[in-house]
Amino acid sequence: MLQNNDVKNFLNRKLEIPCFNEYYANLARIRQDELTKPRGSLGKLEEIAIWMSGWQKKIKPTMNSAHCLIFAGNHGIASKGVSAYPAKVTSQMVENFKNGGAAINQLCNVANIKLSVIPINLESPTKDFTELPAMEVEETIKIMQLGFDSVPEECDFLVLGEMGISNTTSATAISCVLFDEPVENWTGPGTGLNKKGVLKKISLIKSALKLHGKKFSNPQNILSTFGGREMAAIAGSVIAARSRRIPVLLDGFICTSAAATLTIFEKNFLDHCLISHLSTEPGHLGVSNHLKKEPILNLNLRLGEGSGAAIASLIIRSAIEVHNGMYTFAEAKVNKKL
Amino acid sequence: MLQNNDVKNFLNRKLEIPCFNEYYANLARIRQDELTKPRGSLGKLEEIAIWMSGWQKKIKPTMNSAHCLIFAGNHGIASKGVSAYPAKVTSQMVENFKNGGAAINQLCNVANIKLSVIPINLESPTKDFTELPAMEVEETIKIMQLGFDSVPEECDFLVLGEMGISNTTSATAISCVLFDEPVENWTGPGTGLNKKGVLKKISLIKSALKLHGKKFSNPQNILSTFGGREMAAIAGSVIAARSRRIPVLLDGFICTSAAATLTIFEKNFLDHCLISHLSTEPGHLGVSNHLKKEPILNLNLRLGEGSGAAIASLIIRSAIEVHNGMYTFAEAKVNKKL
Repeated sequence: MLQNNDVKNFLNRKLEIPCFNEYYANLARIRQDELTKPRGSLGKLEEIAIWMSGWQKKIKPTMNSAHCLIFAGNHGIASKGVSAYPAKVTSQMVENFKNGGAAINQLCNVANIKLSVIPINLESPTKDFTELPAMEVEETIKIMQLGFDSVPEECDFLVLGEMGISNTTSATAISCVLFDEPVENWTGPGTGLNKKGVLKKISLIKSALKLHGKKFSNPQNILSTFGGREMAAIAGSVIAARSRRIPVLLDGFICTSAAATLTIFEKNFLDHCLISHLSTEPGHLGVSNHLKKEPILNLNLRLGEGSGAAIASLIIRSAIEVHNGMYTFAEAKVNKKL
Repeated sequence: MLQNNDVKNFLNRKLEIPCFNEYYANLARIRQDELTKPRGSLGKLEEIAIWMSGWQKKIKPTMNSAHCLIFAGNHGIASKGVSAYPAKVTSQMVENFKNGGAAINQLCNVANIKLSVIPINLESPTKDFTELPAMEVEETIKIMQLGFDSVPEECDFLVLGEMGISNTTSATAISCVLFDEPVENWTGPGTGLNKKGVLKKISLIKSALKLHGKKFSNPQNILSTFGGREMAAIAGSVIAARSRRIPVLLDGFICTSAAATLTIFEKNFLDHCLISHLSTEPGHLGVSNHLKKEPILNLNLRLGEGSGAAIASLIIRSAIEVHNGMYTFAEAKVNKKL
């Protein structure tokens, strides 16, 4: 069996990384200004259509094969009681995804997105990162490759999500390290901790940062240290998407933090990603600001599992249908601005 | 032919006005708390589903027959040059709507909404309201009735929009009168006036307010005074929707201002309406605040023609599909909170 080494090549700077194509973006801009509406009057919809054109290298961008990948992982830190739910809910929710009963199933139906659920070694949680690194670096790279390989061949638009009881704890540790933020500021209730629970979570993350330090020179080391597997897989699929010019919608705090580890590799590595919605988890606004990405929606969501990203894909679809389908002033015989 | 007098009856307080049904809303709340997600984790989606239940009197609300009505009118004030586009663009855009070439056509396709375009006497613009009342009160009531009658029998969700060159001028006059706001604060560029144009627009609106005064004791008088016909029709269709428990999505500044005239009749008359998006036109935030309604989206739109409302309908559809389709903890065999 052929061994895929794309992620290793990427980490060794041997994978080709395409950039936003200004030529196609400009063609899209010209088209926008010819459509039967006052220039700029569709605001973010216009920006999104142009962004899609520049990444896909198409004057009329497509969402013919939108895919949502949900990676699931179990966390050693869960044994410390940092979630309002027991750890076994991760695998129970994976079953729920497979049976069509979760929020993301309904949302993928509404948005015409194909859903894949990818549980990763749920039976053996990562190590508790307040005591040891969550994973070996080699395992992390393998799981990043799994994420890379999970992006389907025909995919032209990628929606990412995750499931993993206790993973806001990992995400908070990672994002506080990445952006050098005090742990108190970005630690939140996750699925619904009470005040005392949040204080305990803060104290655990702080002790982990003391143990492992705050200096990480590459994505694989920070992901190995704090986990979880679903976050490593997300990072891998973001790399795959970039290498194939596939635009990406990141879901909330965990997804954004996982992708943000790649900014250690290159500051602008997430140019092909948009943040779908602003989570109520307090770290998400901070991370979004650091990434200079304004979330498309603000619906007070904090569910994860790709739910906000699936909803935001409806805005992307609206943007490209308007861009592709509207008549120009000349076609519609409408007078232009005085 | 039978003469419909619903609007006259309404204005004479003889039309039955149903209220939000707390019984069904509570059943929906109970259902939300049983679905496989942390309580409250779907934020506004949960609120929207409960709101739909309370209005439609259905535990599982529906959007089986969503309709978008776009009313179009021509304005006498257009002769004063308060728009960046010539007045004939109103009828040209109506043709564009009918031919499928406008933004709203693509958006209704994406959102599975049936679109009706209703031009109202475009060949004879209303009077210039800086000189005379835009319309007779009797005409206004007739057009409100036309709006009332335009809501299709089978409609279970109503999306409203408008087209009318110069109608931000009418909307600004109306909203400044309704909420006693200085004209300077809420006058914006509309389709794209320059700074000088905006100053002229301010001065014209001020002179109109001086001429007609700022005291209006009913919706029909304020709509007669400042117009336009499309705004009177919107008000009428909002009344129809309320009388039949149909939830409504208002588009941007013009639509919201037209509906807001009904708050003279009764302060909470718009409880069955949501504001779909925050327009970049400066008055819209102010009017939304006065109505205590937070717009669902903020995409920097300022197109009108129902475009923001059609997009926001995708959020409503997401909310009800999640509400109706998700499994409960018991159905999915997922553990509840610790």
